[in-house]
Amino acid sequence: MRDIFHEELDAINGGLVQMSLLVREAFSDATKALLTSDLALAEKVIAADAAIDDIYHELDARTINLIARQQPVATDLRTLVSSLRISADLERMGDLAHHIAKTARMRYPNCAVPDVLTNIITAMDKEGSGISEKMTTVIQYGDTVRALEVDKDDDEMDRLHRELIATLLGDSWDHGIETAIDMTLLGRYYERFSDHAVSIAHRIYFVVTGEYAVEKS
Amino acid sequence: MRDIFHEELDAINGGLVQMSLLVREAFSDATKALLTSDLALAEKVIAADAAIDDIYHELDARTINLIARQQPVATDLRTLVSSLRISADLERMGDLAHHIAKTARMRYPNCAVPDVLTNIITAMDKEGSGISEKMTTVIQYGDTVRALEVDKDDDEMDRLHRELIATLLGDSWDHGIETAIDMTLLGRYYERFSDHAVSIAHRIYFVVTGEYAVEKS
Repeated sequence: MRDIFHEELDAINGGLVQMSLLVREAFSDATKALLTSDLALAEKVIAADAAIDDIYHELDARTINLIARQQPVATDLRTLVSSLRISADLERMGDLAHHIAKTARMRYPNCAVPDVLTNIITAMDKEGSGISEKMTTVIQYGDTVRALEVDKDDDEMDRLHRELIATLLGDSWDHGIETAIDMTLLGRYYERFSDHAVSIAHRIYFVVTGEYAVEKS
Repeated sequence: MRDIFHEELDAINGGLVQMSLLVREAFSDATKALLTSDLALAEKVIAADAAIDDIYHELDARTINLIARQQPVATDLRTLVSSLRISADLERMGDLAHHIAKTARMRYPNCAVPDVLTNIITAMDKEGSGISEKMTTVIQYGDTVRALEVDKDDDEMDRLHRELIATLLGDSWDHGIETAIDMTLLGRYYERFSDHAVSIAHRIYFVVTGEYAVEKS
């Protein structure tokens, strides 16, 4: 039977899982809004960010309250401190989805992404979505195998990011400076989204195993 | 006389002050390296990031250890949890200075910043440096007046950032796509640096007053 402390710990973990599902949905919806110039969907993502922020603040209060009441030590305390860090990363991932959606809205009714970059953004969306799905499993089950798998996905995201920049710099780029600026920032949002997911997965790996996941430099 | 707990709390605060001074130095040095194509200085900033990360990890361990040993509640616990968040923001500010320095190194022996943007980057450096100086005072003394002042500085940083983007988009821009990409990312690093400083100042305002600083939307 679980004691009250571990029930509360499970509830906080459930909150993190809920946040990570919302973040993934916001991210995928933001890309869809971006690629299809879907203003309503962009507005939905922009509005949904407040819900993610609400869970973040609620989890924060709950975690601090639990530390104050139960005064955990060792692994339990490290788990709770990690939860505080993970919720901050998830909140930031929500912000990045929000930025993507705002770019879609800013360029509406035009599409911010020129045809020549549609495939790369689609591939970055697929990677980001895959990474955040694995990250959710890592949060939910403490899955240390998947916690290390995200590194390879992040490498692929970085490769796509370099491909995006190379396209902007190529001789055939004829979409001008404004679109290049948009795409530079969008590329950064996707790349950072992936970085935060890796950071979360590594953090849980550390809590579960007591060892650092090998960081890429 | 201070008890051991409050001595430890002061020591952690001292660590945050130390981090914030290093971050500010890294930021100013990075800008100087960027504007004067000073490779040695860029390398110095890049190498110094490890020292900032070390303090970050040391403060983390120390803070968690203090929570475990002393089991603080109420304001003391909130202060410690805030310290964890503030050190993470400072670590990220260090990363941003590191990114600026890496841009300087990547373009060496050329200068990444074209003459037409020197004044704006100089002004962004001045704002960022001013904000991080105020932020240090806020961390050190819990100065709630300065904690709110940073909002105005951040507004000025945002204005400079818009001016930078407008310059890239102006008819007279003749430095091509690569420089526009560099400047877009640099602009983002300066702007984010300022955002983190505001976030730190607001967090301390909350710990000291129990009220949220009014956030800009």
